[in-house]
Amino acid sequence: MKLQPLLIAFFASAFVFSQEHSHKSSRILVFPDVPGYRTLKTDLHQHTVFSDGNVWPTIRVMEALRDNLDVISLTEHIEYQPHKEDIPHPDRNRSYELALQEAKDHDLLIIHGSEITRKPPMGHSNAVFIQDANTLLNDKAEDSFAESKKQGAFVFWNHPAWHPQSPNGNPILSDFQKERIQKGELHGIEIINMGDYAEESLALALEHNLTIMGNSDIHGLIDWDYTEKGHDRPITLVFAKEKTQESVKEALFAGRTVAVYNSLLVGKKENLTPLLKACIQIEKAQYINKTSILEVTLKNVSSSDLIFENQMPYTFYSSSPVFTISAGETKTINIKTLERKDGLTLTLKALGAYVAPKVQPIVEWEIKVEE
Amino acid sequence: MKLQPLLIAFFASAFVFSQEHSHKSSRILVFPDVPGYRTLKTDLHQHTVFSDGNVWPTIRVMEALRDNLDVISLTEHIEYQPHKEDIPHPDRNRSYELALQEAKDHDLLIIHGSEITRKPPMGHSNAVFIQDANTLLNDKAEDSFAESKKQGAFVFWNHPAWHPQSPNGNPILSDFQKERIQKGELHGIEIINMGDYAEESLALALEHNLTIMGNSDIHGLIDWDYTEKGHDRPITLVFAKEKTQESVKEALFAGRTVAVYNSLLVGKKENLTPLLKACIQIEKAQYINKTSILEVTLKNVSSSDLIFENQMPYTFYSSSPVFTISAGETKTINIKTLERKDGLTLTLKALGAYVAPKVQPIVEWEIKVEE
Amino acid sequence: MKLQPLLIAFFASAFVFSQEHSHKSSRILVFPDVPGYRTLKTDLHQHTVFSDGNVWPTIRVMEALRDNLDVISLTEHIEYQPHKEDIPHPDRNRSYELALQEAKDHDLLIIHGSEITRKPPMGHSNAVFIQDANTLLNDKAEDSFAESKKQGAFVFWNHPAWHPQSPNGNPILSDFQKERIQKGELHGIEIINMGDYAEESLALALEHNLTIMGNSDIHGLIDWDYTEKGHDRPITLVFAKEKTQESVKEALFAGRTVAVYNSLLVGKKENLTPLLKACIQIEKAQYINKTSILEVTLKNVSSSDLIFENQMPYTFYSSSPVFTISAGETKTINIKTLERKDGLTLTLKALGAYVAPKVQPIVEWEIKVEE
Amino acid sequence: MKLQPLLIAFFASAFVFSQEHSHKSSRILVFPDVPGYRTLKTDLHQHTVFSDGNVWPTIRVMEALRDNLDVISLTEHIEYQPHKEDIPHPDRNRSYELALQEAKDHDLLIIHGSEITRKPPMGHSNAVFIQDANTLLNDKAEDSFAESKKQGAFVFWNHPAWHPQSPNGNPILSDFQKERIQKGELHGIEIINMGDYAEESLALALEHNLTIMGNSDIHGLIDWDYTEKGHDRPITLVFAKEKTQESVKEALFAGRTVAVYNSLLVGKKENLTPLLKACIQIEKAQYINKTSILEVTLKNVSSSDLIFENQMPYTFYSSSPVFTISAGETKTINIKTLERKDGLTLTLKALGAYVAPKVQPIVEWEIKVEE
Repeated sequence: MKLQPLLIAFFASAFVFSQEHSHKSSRILVFPDVPGYRTLKTDLHQHTVFSDGNVWPTIRVMEALRDNLDVISLTEHIEYQPHKEDIPHPDRNRSYELALQEAKDHDLLIIHGSEITRKPPMGHSNAVFIQDANTLLNDKAEDSFAESKKQGAFVFWNHPAWHPQSPNGNPILSDFQKERIQKGELHGIEIINMGDYAEESLALALEHNLTIMGNSDIHGLIDWDYTEKGHDRPITLVFAKEKTQESVKEALFAGRTVAVYNSLLVGKKENLTPLLKACIQIEKAQYINKTSILEVTLKNVSSSDLIFENQMPYTFYSSSPVFTISAGETKTINIKTLERKDGLTLTLKALGAYVAPKVQPIVEWEIKVEE
Repeated sequence: MKLQPLLIAFFASAFVFSQEHSHKSSRILVFPDVPGYRTLKTDLHQHTVFSDGNVWPTIRVMEALRDNLDVISLTEHIEYQPHKEDIPHPDRNRSYELALQEAKDHDLLIIHGSEITRKPPMGHSNAVFIQDANTLLNDKAEDSFAESKKQGAFVFWNHPAWHPQSPNGNPILSDFQKERIQKGELHGIEIINMGDYAEESLALALEHNLTIMGNSDIHGLIDWDYTEKGHDRPITLVFAKEKTQESVKEALFAGRTVAVYNSLLVGKKENLTPLLKACIQIEKAQYINKTSILEVTLKNVSSSDLIFENQMPYTFYSSSPVFTISAGETKTINIKTLERKDGLTLTLKALGAYVAPKVQPIVEWEIKVEE
Repeated sequence: MKLQPLLIAFFASAFVFSQEHSHKSSRILVFPDVPGYRTLKTDLHQHTVFSDGNVWPTIRVMEALRDNLDVISLTEHIEYQPHKEDIPHPDRNRSYELALQEAKDHDLLIIHGSEITRKPPMGHSNAVFIQDANTLLNDKAEDSFAESKKQGAFVFWNHPAWHPQSPNGNPILSDFQKERIQKGELHGIEIINMGDYAEESLALALEHNLTIMGNSDIHGLIDWDYTEKGHDRPITLVFAKEKTQESVKEALFAGRTVAVYNSLLVGKKENLTPLLKACIQIEKAQYINKTSILEVTLKNVSSSDLIFENQMPYTFYSSSPVFTISAGETKTINIKTLERKDGLTLTLKALGAYVAPKVQPIVEWEIKVEE
Repeated sequence: MKLQPLLIAFFASAFVFSQEHSHKSSRILVFPDVPGYRTLKTDLHQHTVFSDGNVWPTIRVMEALRDNLDVISLTEHIEYQPHKEDIPHPDRNRSYELALQEAKDHDLLIIHGSEITRKPPMGHSNAVFIQDANTLLNDKAEDSFAESKKQGAFVFWNHPAWHPQSPNGNPILSDFQKERIQKGELHGIEIINMGDYAEESLALALEHNLTIMGNSDIHGLIDWDYTEKGHDRPITLVFAKEKTQESVKEALFAGRTVAVYNSLLVGKKENLTPLLKACIQIEKAQYINKTSILEVTLKNVSSSDLIFENQMPYTFYSSSPVFTISAGETKTINIKTLERKDGLTLTLKALGAYVAPKVQPIVEWEIKVEE
């Protein structure tokens, strides 16, 4: 019966229509691997009822699976325990244990972590890859950091620009942080948290060689804070050799990350540029008959909408120099090469991306022209 | 009964949700007036069965009403009559007459126009505000242009970069066009046609002081070429003193236009900048309590998605420096002013807009801070 | 690289979500074949500029291809020629010829037809499978019908309940129609036209053994009258042996049709019941572990939403007895069989369907239970 | 400036389009009041981390506010405490207290309740309007019921057809329930739970005069179980004199309820019929010029899609006798009254509604014809 191809056309048409339309309808996060590394999607800053969050740890695992994450950490506030009256537990490792249990039949890595939660100038910091959260509970913040280092943890400074602790909205690198960095007790910094991005924090990251991080800091529901608004949760992409705890840890210490929030991607040039390059696949490159206009079909294989600006000496026949390829969308651009070529270097500046404050990366793809 | 407010909440919630989501669901085009002028939405390049189009003129009027246009012209090819076997009419004014009749109870202006359709180097040109299309039919193109001038028409060069007539996709300013310009017989140039934009045509416009135009050149259905793909038809915004034929004509000769296709807006600085400024309304400006972070609520009152880049000495607390405000969307940005101010100048570069090849306009809004 | 499965999940998730949601997003019409016959989707009542329609015949072909139709006829009013001033053509066969040309590289059958357009009591009738429309132009309607018969045409009575010709909205079977039927000059009747359904016309069809028809009678754009409102165009499903002109004609004379408009399907029992049966595919039937509740997965492989009511002696565990399976949707029902069975007969009444006025068909599917 | 009306048209068009399309885009539940009573939307069966749910009680309050509920109860399992290791609290009143606190600035009533959770034949039952959950914890179920009665609680039997406790999916009215009913210790019964409807439970409700209930029994997230699938959470509509605790309690004991899940509405005739009647507002009734066809515009002011079947002696001009009016939709039907009337009784059977197993209510509206 000839119904099958018709059904496929029926279903495909609905889908093609939505691709053309580029309407975000899926919460699944997707990013391609880069040469030499797996691209792991991580959210290493989350809360549950075991500190000041509102859900049982199992919900965080389920959210992560729905969003297609690879790695999470439930980083409860060690010191701040607003549910203490009902959850009087002395064991700060519980949310980690419960998450591990929920995730056991899945491919999701659960990293043991905690949030050292202090007033300014110490601020809030997450220690991940810890062994025991209970020993991180100390009177003096310095001792918590020292203990974290002893446990081999990777420690990052959370939302340093958070206005309740810095009223002008800029990070304040105090002596406390400087000492921690010196002592090898502070290794990273969130430049994206809860959808807030601070370029001054990015500047600190580059200046002090701190690993660039982006996390949700979710307390309520991902659905309410992000999904229903058509947003993705903020994440840190980690470029690791394999999808294992050790490999993720190695990558974090090596600084191989990109922070992502919707169409904003931030990272060091050596990490961000290969990622952007891999996000766009060249599907076709063919000259329009009888012209010197090269029709190039691009596909954005990531879940972030990407905004680009043409940087080539050639102009476009059809599109504006500034164009967006939506998540999952296939788009055709027409390059006026003036004479027929065998190949060329597609050169675009990624406008939603930063390798330094106000500095956007330029990405190149080698195109071979088909006959 | 307390149902009314609930119903309003019910319906409003659905709508607010869609605004947040910024999904293009309406074909209605909307652009604000600018100081001193009405902003009229025009499409002055369309075809019907009376040349090589596929619909009766009444459909063009209905499409224009659905899209909320102010002014249209059905510019049939004078010389090219592929339906001649069935429509052997000698009267080239017919599609204008039929459109006038259909539009008589509506607020839509129908401009009498024709397309002088020739091979390169003459190319295709539209003459609008003609009196009689029949006398434009001549052996020599020069005579058609001369006759147009005699009739007081405004004449613009269509899709000069169109690859069937220019294989490298660039406009070729031949002696023919130069003469026409010299003789005051050619006044404008399409830099957008059928969704194709040519920055080289924009360069010609600026160099030779030709009025910047953007039109659909629709032959089939607006629904199929644009609406169902989530696109708007290309239009020319004309900044006229009133919504009358004379006023539109005056504005075209004066060069007061901006060509628009989705989020691409192109025009001379003196026309484009006031338009962009009017497209964004400042709804609220208030400091976040206890901080020097100014929360500013912006509303995009146009039907084009607008992409901006922060140009202020201040950075944002939350958003990327590059951000999009979708058509009809309300968006909040947070400006870190470092100390509390009574007011400031919001300065943004419009990334989807051009005042010259590769030159994007910078727009300023004066903000007064509320207590 | 493991991206492929992720991409498939990414895209599939968006699609599954929309299926669950049953939101009509595709205009493609799909209906399964029935035992012994191809199910051909036809619209045999359409107009173009060649009578009182508003588009060139090519648009009708393009609409039909977009809707995935199999057979169309452009049945211009023979007598009524409102565009005569511009299309003075004496040849009433033109729109057929132009459509044939447009459709030549496609799998769409173009049937030659015309509309005999008269005042009451004659009304409007379509003659399809004619040889020459010009000879159908006569002073007396009787002669047009006689000529149609001579040409071997299949003739059906259009919108007999149309209120401009019958102010109470009911068909009036006058002596004219009775004579035509007697003389074998009138063979069918539209019970659906332009989205209007008349059960009194269905009664006449059954009483006088007239073939049941449903058509769009489109004058403007299918997009405006149907698609943008989330509706399908009305069609006649013809159950033919093959997809050929002769086969379609044979099926029409044999009365093997079902008229369809969205979720309304009307036809004689022997035609409608097999169609409904084929529209629902049983995908899975398995008992829930440790219970006597049979979980049955149904898939609606048609493009019509279908409303059913349980007619079995067994009740449902979960669903209401009345339920809708949207176009393309997969739905699970749970049948409480009270004891485990090897198989059972799923019996449902199709609530949006009629085999006679107020009589809805009951459809049965044999279900074999999996281990 | 004439922008305002254009903006209103711009925004309204998007909204009208979606209404026409009837795509469920809002989770807000809306039901009209009925003569003499407020129609309160309640969900009296929910769980949090304080028994076997997965969220802090505050999330349940927030979900209820998002869904526009009027009344909720967090009915934790008294006996079943899977989170005991982390929440060792002896006080079974905690989730009620925390919900009260969260809801204090809102118009949402929080009812104190608990779930007496036993094996068959006792099953699960909710006691609401209790004073102290702790005293409901007893070895023998009979004592829990007696204590509930002593506290003046309203007690209902949960999901009696739940297959883990009744493998054929039918409720088993055991001696235990009969005694409870006799002793005035069991007053109601869930005929809808978690989206499952059992007509056998409805039969029991009618036979034993038990109040008809429908609830979510939510353990995870309303968003995941209902909202993202385009479904509403199941609720019990309570027809109370005022929106107060006492009034709700009075209405429950009096049996004035309707259980609702999407387009399924179930209740005793005296409660369901007035509700359906109020859900449809007649907006306009006017004869089509020169005909005896009455055009009646109906608006469904509820958040449930409603399916109706014409029961009048008159037929429809346009629509099928079976039609759906989606939530919030305005629909026009055309009634062929054969001669002009001053008024008539619109009579429809509600196909998604039940007043007894397989018995659907017939609803009447008095229509006055406009000039």
